[in-house]
Amino acid sequence: MDDIRGNTFKGLPFAKGHGTGNDFVIVPDPDGELELSAELITTLCDRRRGIGGDGMLRIVRTAAVPELATQAGGPDGAEWFMDYRNADGSAAHMCGNGVRVYARYLVEAGLATGPRVPILTRAGRVLAEVGEESIAVDMPLPRVYGLSTARVGGAEFTGTVATCGNPNLVCWVDDPAGLDLSRVAELDVSTFPDGGNVEFVAKQAGAGEPGLSVRMRVVERGVGETLSCGSGACAVAAVVLRDGGRDAGTVTVDVPGGRLTVTVSEERCVLSGAAVIVATGYANL
Amino acid sequence: MDDIRGNTFKGLPFAKGHGTGNDFVIVPDPDGELELSAELITTLCDRRRGIGGDGMLRIVRTAAVPELATQAGGPDGAEWFMDYRNADGSAAHMCGNGVRVYARYLVEAGLATGPRVPILTRAGRVLAEVGEESIAVDMPLPRVYGLSTARVGGAEFTGTVATCGNPNLVCWVDDPAGLDLSRVAELDVSTFPDGGNVEFVAKQAGAGEPGLSVRMRVVERGVGETLSCGSGACAVAAVVLRDGGRDAGTVTVDVPGGRLTVTVSEERCVLSGAAVIVATGYANL
Repeated sequence: MDDIRGNTFKGLPFAKGHGTGNDFVIVPDPDGELELSAELITTLCDRRRGIGGDGMLRIVRTAAVPELATQAGGPDGAEWFMDYRNADGSAAHMCGNGVRVYARYLVEAGLATGPRVPILTRAGRVLAEVGEESIAVDMPLPRVYGLSTARVGGAEFTGTVATCGNPNLVCWVDDPAGLDLSRVAELDVSTFPDGGNVEFVAKQAGAGEPGLSVRMRVVERGVGETLSCGSGACAVAAVVLRDGGRDAGTVTVDVPGGRLTVTVSEERCVLSGAAVIVATGYANL
Repeated sequence: MDDIRGNTFKGLPFAKGHGTGNDFVIVPDPDGELELSAELITTLCDRRRGIGGDGMLRIVRTAAVPELATQAGGPDGAEWFMDYRNADGSAAHMCGNGVRVYARYLVEAGLATGPRVPILTRAGRVLAEVGEESIAVDMPLPRVYGLSTARVGGAEFTGTVATCGNPNLVCWVDDPAGLDLSRVAELDVSTFPDGGNVEFVAKQAGAGEPGLSVRMRVVERGVGETLSCGSGACAVAAVVLRDGGRDAGTVTVDVPGGRLTVTVSEERCVLSGAAVIVATGYANL
């Protein structure tokens, strides 16, 4: 099909990938030569006028990002920096699904060999373990607190507050599939002054360790329902373990976009699941 | 950026394009060699796990589609056939924005020279006029009938029934931007036994001929609100002209995805507007 590779179609090289349905426009820029304006990022992430994605991952060497050299501790042995941007162009610190997709791209593009790929993020260095299908990454240690409430679509839910870098409210429900989550969640402002994510969770049989397998839907802060949320899955796993009277364990979390597995101990929280590159090409925007 | 063109990344050649925000995955298959299952089309059109689009356009020569040779009238002088599929894989007859994007692809890929490109669709042969920015196509002649009603999000609207291949209800409102169109429209089943599209329209100043410029939002049958609808814009233009006591004229229709222009006479209805190719590449699905 030479006609689509000819001179007519050139532009910005890109790839697209997703981790359990959380999708990203990937822009390879190993030597830090691109100027990516907020407007261009917004257009790239636009699902109808651009490529479409929940955010953008710029693939760039730490050595090509001047401000990293002067940072306390420096790049910390990571050759690659995850320059993660929200769809509005603003910089984001960390994204559990994003860093898994980033690692998959590095290995598929031959930029890293794996299976262990250290990646610098704005929240520090993380280590990705790249498997055939699944990619695992370290996440912030989740912490479980007391109860609070949220209103979603006219109904009130009581749940457990849990953090994993960000604030979450984890609500046990009978049937997550039956909920109308088409509206943004309103959380109790005394507990969540800046809002937070709300997870709706039910136990399920048939996958993973008995009692440690759940289905989850999530309404993300400022976004609405999404197909997957890595930090939300980690917060849910911490609540599942605490409610089961355990300090550590592995929890299977089925999200609408696929299956995530979270292993929590006193020292670490590891999120794993599939991450795939679905397309590569040139954007003409 | 050789790393994204290497052997690692191969797959199905594709392009992505849109006409005023109505977007399509384009699959070049000039010689009709591909077997595109409904499952593959659905995955290609999936906005998070695939490329993402309102539908798929397969670029194929009429000579490579055996059933066309036996059709009454044959391919009718058109070298190219628009094999248009909905996002669920089902075949669709015609799409005003889709055929404009199809024509843009043919010219940019060097498969047609323009400016006039005849294209065979399942609804017959259409002639695309390819301009620098805008592409114009013939649409079915719109017809205007009487009044009917629709309920959208708890509110009832009265409008004029108009067809342009498909059924529409055109409702004059004070401010389309202020409406909550997050729910699917329920039309009066006695007039619309199979449902229809609902357009919400207000006059505006500043573009086109005085009295013939409108803003429009549309809720499409079975889909919900979309950024653009070519046949809906033609139905609206016919109602605008009729309500202005005119038989013919050119109406400017601003949709959320951009500007469409519709020229209606007794013999023809021509829809025009921008159509662009925004990306080309390989899908690995």
